Amino acid sequence: MIGFAKQENQKNMQSKKQKYILSLQCPDQVGIVAAVSAYLASQNGWILEADYHSDEATGMFYMRQEILAESLKCDFETLKNEFAPIAQKFNIEWSLTDSHAPKNVVILISKQDHCLNDLLHRYRMGNLNCNIPCVISNHEDNRDFVEWHGIPFFYVPMTKDNKAEAFKEIESIYQNHNGDVMVLARFMQILPADLTEKYHGQIINIHHSFLPSFIGGKPYHQAYERGVKLIGATCHYATKDLDQGPIIEQDVIRIDHSHTIKDMIELGRDVEKTVLARALKQHLENRVMIYKNKTVVFS
Amino acid sequence: MIGFAKQENQKNMQSKKQKYILSLQCPDQVGIVAAVSAYLASQNGWILEADYHSDEATGMFYMRQEILAESLKCDFETLKNEFAPIAQKFNIEWSLTDSHAPKNVVILISKQDHCLNDLLHRYRMGNLNCNIPCVISNHEDNRDFVEWHGIPFFYVPMTKDNKAEAFKEIESIYQNHNGDVMVLARFMQILPADLTEKYHGQIINIHHSFLPSFIGGKPYHQAYERGVKLIGATCHYATKDLDQGPIIEQDVIRIDHSHTIKDMIELGRDVEKTVLARALKQHLENRVMIYKNKTVVFS
Amino acid sequence: MIGFAKQENQKNMQSKKQKYILSLQCPDQVGIVAAVSAYLASQNGWILEADYHSDEATGMFYMRQEILAESLKCDFETLKNEFAPIAQKFNIEWSLTDSHAPKNVVILISKQDHCLNDLLHRYRMGNLNCNIPCVISNHEDNRDFVEWHGIPFFYVPMTKDNKAEAFKEIESIYQNHNGDVMVLARFMQILPADLTEKYHGQIINIHHSFLPSFIGGKPYHQAYERGVKLIGATCHYATKDLDQGPIIEQDVIRIDHSHTIKDMIELGRDVEKTVLARALKQHLENRVMIYKNKTVVFS
Amino acid sequence: MIGFAKQENQKNMQSKKQKYILSLQCPDQVGIVAAVSAYLASQNGWILEADYHSDEATGMFYMRQEILAESLKCDFETLKNEFAPIAQKFNIEWSLTDSHAPKNVVILISKQDHCLNDLLHRYRMGNLNCNIPCVISNHEDNRDFVEWHGIPFFYVPMTKDNKAEAFKEIESIYQNHNGDVMVLARFMQILPADLTEKYHGQIINIHHSFLPSFIGGKPYHQAYERGVKLIGATCHYATKDLDQGPIIEQDVIRIDHSHTIKDMIELGRDVEKTVLARALKQHLENRVMIYKNKTVVFS
Repeated sequence: MIGFAKQENQKNMQSKKQKYILSLQCPDQVGIVAAVSAYLASQNGWILEADYHSDEATGMFYMRQEILAESLKCDFETLKNEFAPIAQKFNIEWSLTDSHAPKNVVILISKQDHCLNDLLHRYRMGNLNCNIPCVISNHEDNRDFVEWHGIPFFYVPMTKDNKAEAFKEIESIYQNHNGDVMVLARFMQILPADLTEKYHGQIINIHHSFLPSFIGGKPYHQAYERGVKLIGATCHYATKDLDQGPIIEQDVIRIDHSHTIKDMIELGRDVEKTVLARALKQHLENRVMIYKNKTVVFS
Repeated sequence: MIGFAKQENQKNMQSKKQKYILSLQCPDQVGIVAAVSAYLASQNGWILEADYHSDEATGMFYMRQEILAESLKCDFETLKNEFAPIAQKFNIEWSLTDSHAPKNVVILISKQDHCLNDLLHRYRMGNLNCNIPCVISNHEDNRDFVEWHGIPFFYVPMTKDNKAEAFKEIESIYQNHNGDVMVLARFMQILPADLTEKYHGQIINIHHSFLPSFIGGKPYHQAYERGVKLIGATCHYATKDLDQGPIIEQDVIRIDHSHTIKDMIELGRDVEKTVLARALKQHLENRVMIYKNKTVVFS
Repeated sequence: MIGFAKQENQKNMQSKKQKYILSLQCPDQVGIVAAVSAYLASQNGWILEADYHSDEATGMFYMRQEILAESLKCDFETLKNEFAPIAQKFNIEWSLTDSHAPKNVVILISKQDHCLNDLLHRYRMGNLNCNIPCVISNHEDNRDFVEWHGIPFFYVPMTKDNKAEAFKEIESIYQNHNGDVMVLARFMQILPADLTEKYHGQIINIHHSFLPSFIGGKPYHQAYERGVKLIGATCHYATKDLDQGPIIEQDVIRIDHSHTIKDMIELGRDVEKTVLARALKQHLENRVMIYKNKTVVFS
Repeated sequence: MIGFAKQENQKNMQSKKQKYILSLQCPDQVGIVAAVSAYLASQNGWILEADYHSDEATGMFYMRQEILAESLKCDFETLKNEFAPIAQKFNIEWSLTDSHAPKNVVILISKQDHCLNDLLHRYRMGNLNCNIPCVISNHEDNRDFVEWHGIPFFYVPMTKDNKAEAFKEIESIYQNHNGDVMVLARFMQILPADLTEKYHGQIINIHHSFLPSFIGGKPYHQAYERGVKLIGATCHYATKDLDQGPIIEQDVIRIDHSHTIKDMIELGRDVEKTVLARALKQHLENRVMIYKNKTVVFS
C-alpha cells in the first residue's frame, strides 16, 4: 500500500495533456502582448488558456498563458532561453513551468485533520497537480491516516522552549524533500519571521475567519461575541505579520443566533477546507501572482 | 399623485390577514411555552407562525408567535391585559403588536439614493408593512423622487458647525411624525450618542462593509487596500459606538483583482440595499430581538 | 485498527448531552402546542430546541422538540407511553428518539469516493450521530479505505443479468446490520421500485444536478449542453420514480463558459458531498419530515 | 423634468473614458492573438482589459479587448477599416463599438415593475451605458413612473385577438426609436417566432426560474409543487423556442418549507432584477458572445 496515493495521483496527472505555463508581471506598456504572442506563434504555440490583467491603479500588467506542449516546434529549454530576452526588454518578472513537473507540497498540521483529509482525497483523485512528499505535524494523531496513503509522516513535537529548534527541523525536512510549497493546513503554531521571509510566496495558510476580521487566536469565539451573521475562512500567503499576508481566496457561510461556538467551528470546517483547496489548486497551476500585499488570481 | 405610495401600500397591507404578533424574551425555565400556549389556546388563538430559541450560553429564552386575529375569542386589548400577569410570573419582557397598525418609518439619506429607491419601491408594492411619513436629508438631491411618491421631504442642511442643531431638528421631525423606526439609508453623518441611546433599538443603519472589518469611513477603499476577495454590507442597530451595534443582517458579494474601487462601490450597492431591506422587513415584523450587543432574528 | 472510527465516533457522540427528540405531524388545530408543552412541562422537560411549522396550504402542523434527558422526572419509556394518548387525541403521527441510540447508516457506493470520503471523515470526527455498520459497493475499489476505518466492506458485483439477485443481497446485508438509513453516496445503479417503497423515507440519494433539471444519467453533460451558469446537487429520498422523490437539500456553484464537462464534474463533487452531508445530518437528527412529495426540514 | 434621467445618465457615462471595444469569434488557430495584438500595438493602442477563450469542445476562439481611444494614433473608422482584412484572413466574426456611442435599449413590461424600477435607477445613476428612448407596455400602470424619468411611455394593449397587430406596433416603435436591444423586463406575452428570429441576439428576457427547470407559466407555482430548496432566475436571449434561448446569467436564493408561493414570488423578485441587470450590463458592454445555443460571457 506504500505509495498508493502518489502512484494514483501521478497516473491521473500524467494522463492529462502536457502544458507549459507562462506567468508574468511587468510595468504596463503598449506592445507586450504583441511581442509575447508573436514569439509564441512563431513557435507554433497553441494557446489553451490566456488571461491578462492591466491594473490601472498600480500601472502593472499581468499575464498567464497555457501552451500545449506538443504544439510547439521547440522544447521547454529553448522556449525558456528564447523568451528571456523578450522578458528583459519589457522588464518582465516571469516563470515558465511544465504541468508534467508537479510541485512538491509539504503539509503541516496539528491535531485537526479536516483540511488534511480533504487535500489528501483530492490528491488521491489526481485533482491537485503536485507531489506530497511528506506531512509534518506537532502531534502524532494523524500518522496512521497519512501513512495509509503511503506518505511519510514526520512528528516534530513543539513546546514553549523548543520552538526555534523545532522550526529548524521543519525547515530541514522541507528542504530534504525539495519542498516547493508549504501548506499550513490548520497548523496551530506561529511561524518565525525569518522563515516566512525566506520562503515568501511559498507558504500558504488557511485562517478560520473572514479576514481582516478576527485576526489571531480563536476567531470563531470572536465571531460569536460580535454576533456576525456570516462566518468565513481566508487563505493567504504567510508573511511575518500574523494573518496579514496577501489573500488568495475567501468564502463565507451563513449562521444565525441558534448556532453555538461549537456549531460554528463545525460549520466553518467546510468553508476552511474548500477555501484552502481552491487556493492551493490555483497556486499549483501558477494562477496566483503577488504584487505588494495583494494577489492577482487568474481562476 | 400626492399620497400615491401610501395609499397603494396601505391597500396592499390591509388586504393581508390581520395578525397579532407576540414577541418576548426572559430567563429560560421549564413551563414558559406551556403557560403561553395554554393561555393562547384558551382564547382559541390560531398560531400562524411560531419560533422559539433557547440560548444555552446566556440562559435566555426567546419566542415569537403570529396569532390570527379573527380566530381569537377576545380583542387585542383583552389579550394584552390578560397576558400581562403571565409575563410577570416568568419575568418576561414582551411586546404585542397588530399587523394592521404598521410602524412609522422615517428614512434619512444623504446623496446616494440606491437604498432609498429600493425601499420606496418595496413600499409602493406593499412589501414593507409600514408607513413612511417622511424622508429627511442633508441634501436636496432626492426631493423630486421622494415627493413623486407623495411623501414629504425635509431638507436639513448640515455643516461642521450646526450639527447639534441639525440633529435636534431631525429628532423633532421624527417625533412630529410619530416615528417608530429611523432608517439610516446611507446617511453619511454620525449620530450623536444621546440620540442613539434615547432611541436604542429604533435606529437601523446600513454600513457598507462586512463588519467588524472596515469600520468607519471609506470601507470600500479599505477593502481594496487589503485585497479581500469578497465585499459586504452590514445592517445593525446604531449605538453610541460607531458601527459596533447589534448586527441584524449581513451579506457579501465576490470580487477579484480586476475590480477597481469604483467597481466595488457599484457592486456593493446591490448588497447594501438588499441587506437593508431584509433587515428592515424583519424589524417591522417584530422578528428581531436584542440582547446585549447581539440579536436573535426569527426569519 | 479495526473499529477505529466506530470507537472514535461513539466516544465523541456519547460525550454530548443525551437528548430525546420528539418529531410529529398532524392536521393543524388550536391547542396542540399547549397540550404537548403542558405534558412536557409536567415532567419538568427542559426544551433545548423547538421548531414549529403550520402549513397553510395543506392544513398540516409540524413540530420538533429536543428535550434534555437529565431534566425529566420520568424515563424514555414512560415518556413514550404517556405521550401516546395525547398523540391519539390530536391524530398525531410521531416519533420519539434518543440521541444516545444512534441510527445505523449503511452506505452504498460505486467507484467514485468523494461522498464516501467526506462522510467517513465526519463520522471519524463524531459529527454524524450514527453508526456505520458497513459499506456496500458494486466495485472493489474502495475496500481498503473503508476497512482502514474498521468498517466491514461488502462487494456485491452487479451485471445486467444479476440485478434482482444483487439487490436481494444488498437488502439482506442491510437487514443483517439493522440498517435504519441507506445512503446512496453516488451509487450508480437504479434501485428497484419495491425496495424504494418498502424503505420509503429511509433511502437517501445524492443526485448530481439541481433537480428537477437534468434528471437521470450524465447530468453534467446535460448541463453543459444547455449552457447553464450554475451547476448543483440535490439530496432527496429515493422513490420509485427516478430523481423525483422529496427533496431534502440542494445547493449550487457558479461556472462559466471556460469550464469543460470535466471541470464541472470536479467542481460539482464539492457541492454533492456538502449537500449529502447536510441532508444526512438533518435526517439523523430527525429534522426532516415528509408530507406527500415534499419535506419540512427544521435545520 | 423631461429628460431628467437621460441627461443625468449621459453626463455620467460621458465622464467615463472613451473606449473602443473589439469583440470577436472565429475558428481557433495559431497566430490570431499575435496578429490582432501586433496591429493594435502598431496603432499604439493601450489595452485596458483583455479576455480570451479558446473552446476545446467546439474549436472556437473568442476575444474581447477594451482599447483606450485617446491612446490610438488613428481614429475609429480607420481602425475599423484596417482591421477588416485581418478579420477576413482569420475568418473572424467581429464588432468594434465605441463606449461613447451607447446602445438604444427599449424596455417592454407588463404590470410588475420591480425590474423596471431597478433598471431605471441604474440608468439614472449612469451605471448602464445606454439610452432608454422609450418604454412599451400592454398596461398603463407604470406610465407615471416612466414619464417621471422623462422617458416616453407607449401603451400597446394586447388581447387574444390583436396579438399580431400589437407586435407589429411594438416592432414599429422599436424601429422608430432605433432600438438596439429589446429588454423583456417581466413582459408577460410570448413573442412571435419571426420577431425573435429577426432580432436574434438583441432580445433579452428574464425568466423567473432557474432554467431549464420550470419553463413556461407560473414557475414559482411549479417550484412550490416540486418542493425545491432554492429558487432562481435566468436571463437569456429570446428565441423561437420558449425559455430555451442562450443563457446569459442565472442566480438563486434559498427558501424553505415555511415559504408560501407568495413569499417565493416576493423573494424571487430580488433575484430576477439582479440577474437581469447584470446580464444587460454585460450585453451593453459587448461582453456576451453567442455561439449556437450558448454564450461566452467575459465578465
